[in-house]
Amino acid sequence: MTTDPGTSAPGEHATTAPAVPPEQSEREDELVRRVLGSFDGCTDQRLKQLMQALVRHLHAFLREVRLTEDEWGKAIEFLTAAGDITDDKRQEFVLLSDTLGASMQTITMNNEAHGDATESTVFGPFFVDGSPEIEHGGDISFGASGEPCWVEGTVTDTAGRPLADALIEVWEADADGLYDVQYGDDRTAARAHLHTDHEGRYRFWGITPTPYPIPHDGPVGKMLKATGRSPMRASHLHFMVKHAGHRTLVTHIFVRGDEYLASDSVFGVKQSLVKDFTRQEAGTPTPDGRELGRATWSKVRFDIVLAPAGS
Amino acid sequence: MTTDPGTSAPGEHATTAPAVPPEQSEREDELVRRVLGSFDGCTDQRLKQLMQALVRHLHAFLREVRLTEDEWGKAIEFLTAAGDITDDKRQEFVLLSDTLGASMQTITMNNEAHGDATESTVFGPFFVDGSPEIEHGGDISFGASGEPCWVEGTVTDTAGRPLADALIEVWEADADGLYDVQYGDDRTAARAHLHTDHEGRYRFWGITPTPYPIPHDGPVGKMLKATGRSPMRASHLHFMVKHAGHRTLVTHIFVRGDEYLASDSVFGVKQSLVKDFTRQEAGTPTPDGRELGRATWSKVRFDIVLAPAGS
Ligand SMILES: [Fe+2]
Ligand SMILES: [Fe+2]
Repeated sequence: MTTDPGTSAPGEHATTAPAVPPEQSEREDELVRRVLGSFDGCTDQRLKQLMQALVRHLHAFLREVRLTEDEWGKAIEFLTAAGDITDDKRQEFVLLSDTLGASMQTITMNNEAHGDATESTVFGPFFVDGSPEIEHGGDISFGASGEPCWVEGTVTDTAGRPLADALIEVWEADADGLYDVQYGDDRTAARAHLHTDHEGRYRFWGITPTPYPIPHDGPVGKMLKATGRSPMRASHLHFMVKHAGHRTLVTHIFVRGDEYLASDSVFGVKQSLVKDFTRQEAGTPTPDGRELGRATWSKVRFDIVLAPAGS
Repeated sequence: MTTDPGTSAPGEHATTAPAVPPEQSEREDELVRRVLGSFDGCTDQRLKQLMQALVRHLHAFLREVRLTEDEWGKAIEFLTAAGDITDDKRQEFVLLSDTLGASMQTITMNNEAHGDATESTVFGPFFVDGSPEIEHGGDISFGASGEPCWVEGTVTDTAGRPLADALIEVWEADADGLYDVQYGDDRTAARAHLHTDHEGRYRFWGITPTPYPIPHDGPVGKMLKATGRSPMRASHLHFMVKHAGHRTLVTHIFVRGDEYLASDSVFGVKQSLVKDFTRQEAGTPTPDGRELGRATWSKVRFDIVLAPAGS
């Protein structure tokens, strides 16, 4: 029980495993065969493939770690507690998937990078349909606290052609690390949508992103604590970009130098999405002449490249 | 997406896998390494081993089947529904573990067969502490419906020495396939405990076991239906046997010839636990002279061998 496969090998096998007598091993093999066989009559071939693969990997896990009956009981308790805390507003199973990297792996597999297309990352639970529309250079904060941040860039296709009238949805947490929907008072703030102009350009005022923890008062939070992990997400600004004929992009941009880049609790960081948010001293003229008084502000450029639809 | 690993190989690898471009594969590997690395600071070495192995097998599963975002969403919905139906009396996560063979694999690993010791099987959710005590030859049914069944045998150690005063707990479903606790009316029936005599012998009247379905009105039942599996458990009679200095045995015995032996929904059947329940015509004299009138009855012998404690 002291095997430690370490972290060097991303494959699914531990480099060592406890010795199991051949007779016992055959008994365990036989059980796996029986469970696999129980799905033989499944007429939905994809479902059959999923269930049989699940069974193979689940049993391989159980056997590799030689799970004890006590540990099995704790796993059942964990899932039960996750079910208990989950409701319309809280999704502990998504948090579990996120913190085990399963969400990000699914995103990664289903959004293979295509040429120079911008990479995607996790959607997160805080997008809301029906955000306010803003003009070019408008402000998405609607009163949310935080340092003003000028965001600008272009939306193009992979050949570099500007995409006019692309829809850009942006949303982010405020300076207290909370999204509007987390206040429970129906406010709409720090979210909006806009469209690119005829040259594919966009620009708006947002808030310089700050780190925030994922909800960590439930079983997933306990797991993070017990394993010495932080619930903090690296600072980020969410984007969803849509344009007819192109693949919808769900992503965020991260802040270069942020202290949680290497330990983002949901593994959402991709190097290509880390951007320079340049801090400007108070009094520095703003791109649109907006008067910010004695406030510092920041600016960032994010040029977005959409892959063709169906790619 | 048409790979079918079939059921011949109990190992964890499919024999074929979709081709993934090397760059994409490296991107997915890199994510797995990051998730594994997030547990490097875990000071509880066993927990670290469990979490890292879980991550390796989980990601190997996701990547082997190339899980779609839609399928990921269905998995989250499934777990959420399992949480919704789970309460003090219903444990859908245990049912899920049972129907994927994970419970039985855990039992199998933690109760390696020792010499001639009797094999164990799943505990099930219907054991209740504080069952009535009966005398030798007493009746455990307490009014539960079903054909009378004479059960007798011995409890010995692996050297064949009789174990006197061993505690035997027995419990089973009635002829309608229900345990007493499923009626929700506080009845106690078809369960009891007794002790072996000075020669290690026991005998009692029970009920000839009949098949029953596991609760199948929830997401696990839907999974069984969608995959063409039956919720039925092979007919069985539960035993838990305790004796100081010996390993506690949790098992059941099954009925030879039962139609669900090969498709038991929780994979509890072991060949060594399949016993001859011999049906007796009405009027056949009973072992203890009990008068059963025009009722048929059955009898079965189950000789129990306990492994030494700590084995
Ligand atoms: Fe976020
Ligand atoms: Fe049972």
